[in-house]
Amino acid sequence: MSFSFELITEDGMARAGIIDLGHTKVETPVFMPVGTNASVKAVLPCMLVAVGAKIVLSNTYHLYLRPGIETIEKLGGLHKFMGWKRGILTDSGGFQVFSLADLRNIHMEGVYFKSHIDGSIHFFDPKKVVELQSRWGSDIGMVLDVCPPYSEDKSYVKKMLDITIKWAKSSINARKKYPIKALFGIVQGGVFDDLRKEAALQMKDMEFDGFAVGGLSVGEPIEDMYRVTPIVTDILPKNKPRYAMGIGKPENIIELIDRGIDMFDCVMPTRNARNGQLFTKFGVVNIKRREYANDDRPIEEGCRCYTCRSFSRGYLRHLYKAQELSFYTLATIHNLYYYINLVKSARLAILEGRFKSFKDDFYKMREEGKSDE
Amino acid sequence: MSFSFELITEDGMARAGIIDLGHTKVETPVFMPVGTNASVKAVLPCMLVAVGAKIVLSNTYHLYLRPGIETIEKLGGLHKFMGWKRGILTDSGGFQVFSLADLRNIHMEGVYFKSHIDGSIHFFDPKKVVELQSRWGSDIGMVLDVCPPYSEDKSYVKKMLDITIKWAKSSINARKKYPIKALFGIVQGGVFDDLRKEAALQMKDMEFDGFAVGGLSVGEPIEDMYRVTPIVTDILPKNKPRYAMGIGKPENIIELIDRGIDMFDCVMPTRNARNGQLFTKFGVVNIKRREYANDDRPIEEGCRCYTCRSFSRGYLRHLYKAQELSFYTLATIHNLYYYINLVKSARLAILEGRFKSFKDDFYKMREEGKSDE
Repeated sequence: MSFSFELITEDGMARAGIIDLGHTKVETPVFMPVGTNASVKAVLPCMLVAVGAKIVLSNTYHLYLRPGIETIEKLGGLHKFMGWKRGILTDSGGFQVFSLADLRNIHMEGVYFKSHIDGSIHFFDPKKVVELQSRWGSDIGMVLDVCPPYSEDKSYVKKMLDITIKWAKSSINARKKYPIKALFGIVQGGVFDDLRKEAALQMKDMEFDGFAVGGLSVGEPIEDMYRVTPIVTDILPKNKPRYAMGIGKPENIIELIDRGIDMFDCVMPTRNARNGQLFTKFGVVNIKRREYANDDRPIEEGCRCYTCRSFSRGYLRHLYKAQELSFYTLATIHNLYYYINLVKSARLAILEGRFKSFKDDFYKMREEGKSDE
Repeated sequence: MSFSFELITEDGMARAGIIDLGHTKVETPVFMPVGTNASVKAVLPCMLVAVGAKIVLSNTYHLYLRPGIETIEKLGGLHKFMGWKRGILTDSGGFQVFSLADLRNIHMEGVYFKSHIDGSIHFFDPKKVVELQSRWGSDIGMVLDVCPPYSEDKSYVKKMLDITIKWAKSSINARKKYPIKALFGIVQGGVFDDLRKEAALQMKDMEFDGFAVGGLSVGEPIEDMYRVTPIVTDILPKNKPRYAMGIGKPENIIELIDRGIDMFDCVMPTRNARNGQLFTKFGVVNIKRREYANDDRPIEEGCRCYTCRSFSRGYLRHLYKAQELSFYTLATIHNLYYYINLVKSARLAILEGRFKSFKDDFYKMREEGKSDE
């Protein structure tokens, strides 16, 4: 079980590197499609390969509740179960316990929560969460953390941060019993600069293989996200990857690459695809609009994805209106291709020392283009 | 615009042949997946190629209502519109007008009907239906017919048959103005042997490229279907393909191949897939059953479809329970592969003069196997 990260170059705070998972080399910055239930919604593994995905995210909370650890183990582990040979990062469930579960009772040792599927009561602690991720064979596991909503005041965020740091230490211990290829710590602290700094300082020397910035995109103004992220990345060790959890819009990703982040995941390309929102370098195409009914152009001129090479906006709009299942697949293929290639282009720009002008061009194309947003 | 049919061999009444559509050679017997709205539900054209589909069916009634002839014409015709380079047969809408539309007012000239989408009123006559199929570029068009429900009495069925035959003649005329690669007549007559015979005798010398047996599988006992079909195929010219519309279960297809039918279409493999019913040579696997939760076998041992080569029953059951969109795609791929390969195997048996033992084996495997039906 080998994991390594090589930082190849920096351009300002932006970084280009390679994560080696043994079976897969993941070039960073990287965008990870979200496959909550061990399936990236509406696309098959062969399509994920075709859009260039090297690593996908799945969710400990969901997989634990359904199908459960026994099924995944009996069916050969998560990779074999879902027919995916490349990288898998699993979220710890911390975020889901606080966003999806009805009832939770959090204390220093762990958290009780009620399944959103059948209302049954369950308990997660840091050790259990490492065990699960170890047993089903995640490439990268995440530690259990507490992710307070944006609305909470500083004293509460501080209290939850203390629990998160205690849990991070327990997770390191748990790893001795439950080996896992890589385990990432999560830096919390809300929108409070001093708490983020404290969190990063406390975590940076722990034996993690990488670090996430958690608790972003939970309702805070975008300026807060852009301000606290570099406070954290400034402190984290340079030789380990940094991951901004649940981020985000294309512009958020570009801005956070510029602030030292290497890894991203977000439901936006997949979820918005299913709602008819298609990303292009010129902005969003809202395919349900009547103006696209007879439009024979692809979603984005010049895009090399299967959808754009094969189908017109007019046909996609027809599929959307007729609620044909293939719409979800075709739209998801395009949006994932857009996200993955946006981040790939950013990487190339970093390697060539022109990230600033890349970023300028990114915004310029959006201004010049017509967006349906 | 070339169309030809070559009858290669007969084995009893069973036939093996080739339909040449110019761009595609279609070996018969053939199963045609149904793509009502210019999309076979849940699968992309590249997957249809992978499961071996040579020709798909789409519906004049649906396409006319949405997206409409103007959109399909502006977007380059039906093949280009849906990104499908192989064969397309379009149903005339006769069946849909009588099964889907709320209101219809039928007279000797044509039929008024109310759209099931928005309630708007429309008129189809034989000429209009040939025009539509010609303009959007179907490879094989079907004539407008009247398909009475099983419950109707003989005098009504006879009256509707007379209209159908009148319309068949008008369709032949319409073709002079609206060229189409192939146009098939439809033999009606319900479950009445003499009406079926009369219909076949009246139609057999008309200038059609092939003939369909319509009005089957509309609620009649299976014995009626098996009895009236050979009455019709006995009369139809041997040098033209015969198509049993909307048929059927695997055993219906085998039985009708044995009664001289060359072409089949049915929503069963695609629709049942979405309900978790998976076809195998041993019978049906109902994937929602708890017994499959930890089952690491493919749907059917030895099946070479993408789904069976890549995923376990346990994973498919998980996707079904989690209502993941990929379930519909994977289940549809398998069921279409099953249907298409069942008919391919039947063809090989006919070519080798062993259709009878093939049919015996088909039933024997089902008896020996465990079916969840």
